[in-house]
Amino acid sequence: MKSYIRKVNYYETDKMGVVHHSNYFRYFEEARTAFMEQCGYPYPRLEEEGIISPVVGISCRYHKPVHYGETLEIRVYLTRMSRVKTAFRYEVLDAASGELRASGESEHGYLDGSGRIVSVQKSAPEFYETFLREAEPEA
Amino acid sequence: MKSYIRKVNYYETDKMGVVHHSNYFRYFEEARTAFMEQCGYPYPRLEEEGIISPVVGISCRYHKPVHYGETLEIRVYLTRMSRVKTAFRYEVLDAASGELRASGESEHGYLDGSGRIVSVQKSAPEFYETFLREAEPEA
Amino acid sequence: MKSYIRKVNYYETDKMGVVHHSNYFRYFEEARTAFMEQCGYPYPRLEEEGIISPVVGISCRYHKPVHYGETLEIRVYLTRMSRVKTAFRYEVLDAASGELRASGESEHGYLDGSGRIVSVQKSAPEFYETFLREAEPEA
Amino acid sequence: MKSYIRKVNYYETDKMGVVHHSNYFRYFEEARTAFMEQCGYPYPRLEEEGIISPVVGISCRYHKPVHYGETLEIRVYLTRMSRVKTAFRYEVLDAASGELRASGESEHGYLDGSGRIVSVQKSAPEFYETFLREAEPEA
Repeated sequence: MKSYIRKVNYYETDKMGVVHHSNYFRYFEEARTAFMEQCGYPYPRLEEEGIISPVVGISCRYHKPVHYGETLEIRVYLTRMSRVKTAFRYEVLDAASGELRASGESEHGYLDGSGRIVSVQKSAPEFYETFLREAEPEA
Repeated sequence: MKSYIRKVNYYETDKMGVVHHSNYFRYFEEARTAFMEQCGYPYPRLEEEGIISPVVGISCRYHKPVHYGETLEIRVYLTRMSRVKTAFRYEVLDAASGELRASGESEHGYLDGSGRIVSVQKSAPEFYETFLREAEPEA
Repeated sequence: MKSYIRKVNYYETDKMGVVHHSNYFRYFEEARTAFMEQCGYPYPRLEEEGIISPVVGISCRYHKPVHYGETLEIRVYLTRMSRVKTAFRYEVLDAASGELRASGESEHGYLDGSGRIVSVQKSAPEFYETFLREAEPEA
Repeated sequence: MKSYIRKVNYYETDKMGVVHHSNYFRYFEEARTAFMEQCGYPYPRLEEEGIISPVVGISCRYHKPVHYGETLEIRVYLTRMSRVKTAFRYEVLDAASGELRASGESEHGYLDGSGRIVSVQKSAPEFYETFLREAEPEA
């Protein structure tokens, strides 16, 4: 598990006075970017090696609203790593109280420049090994 | 089922050259707004009656990328309606070819101005009846 | 002048209850896209010819807030066209009342695939002629 | 002048491969929030006192594109402070090289809960004094 801290921006709220639900998926993405940096394998490096990693599926459950001025901790768990697919789980917490605000999951594939599925074990072995080490399969 | 047509905007793409995955949740929302208008019960009317309807959970599966310049058809199915909760299912199609690009689901609750759960059967009976008529429970 | 009609989305509002100021620049972009389509020279065609057109400068003045549920008319004026630069002016009106809500200006350059400035008169003459015909220089 | 550091997010890029121009206005907003925090008068406190501060006008000039993976420094200058209006100037720099990427300006008013213009000298004197001290009028 790796942790990412970030403040809520005004432009992320909507007229309900809370963060719009679509923005949590952007927080997840930021948290994945931070995850990869903390692993020592930043995402831009993967793209430099000619691999892009599109989101295949993603979901979020909202437990309590998040307000402007609050600071969030997003916890990222790498729950599954194979040669062609990666899965993450997320917890969004209020950083001050530790209270859970939302949780989510995502699944990612790997494509080369022409949009063909690639095995990262073959095409980006160092990346594959790095993520394999971080994987925490869930019960 | 109700259908909503919309073009893809440049600002919705990302450096992969396709629509960013977080924007599909905004398309879903637009399609829900259109759904309610087509039902004769626009969402702003619900808020005028003092009820807000936050997203409780939402998900999307991405089948094929969507590009700038394309036109989408988003099909909205109201799959479940109770006094306190509504569920929708979505299909995102390329309007030209009818090809499926993504599909999703969402769940929505109902709150009053103080954030308390309300029964829309009691608090907004006309809305409740309208949605009940539109509901197409899935097998 | 060409006109573009669009509804305000919920996700474009912020906790002030009105459309966030950054979204007007997205409305301008949508209105430019519609402008080019109405001219018979859609923007995707320009990119297919290997030319991208980045924004060089842009501004907006906000006269009255815009709310969810309202429909906007965005009027686009092509105010200047040269071989290397285009300028637009925008008026954002409430479609129902015709009342002015915001106004803006933008300036756009033209680059080839390697990021070099190109003369569209030479590289995309049909586009250049189309825009030249639409230009309405201001006093 | 106060300085704010932030990384570029993937979802802020567009199909040109660079940060979409509309996002700079969101960076400006984040930088203003940081500015106010560093002054000891965070923006949420102003809203708690019943005052909102809408953007009256805003502009940006784009000098060089910004890419995913880069870190930005946004410098905020409070250039004008009166009882009813505040103006800021911004410089967006690549944090690594110090190179200027964009620059901008914004103007902000002050309204009470009913949308009436207020004098912050009267309604929020501590805020007014704080900003007055930070003001660096330009030649």
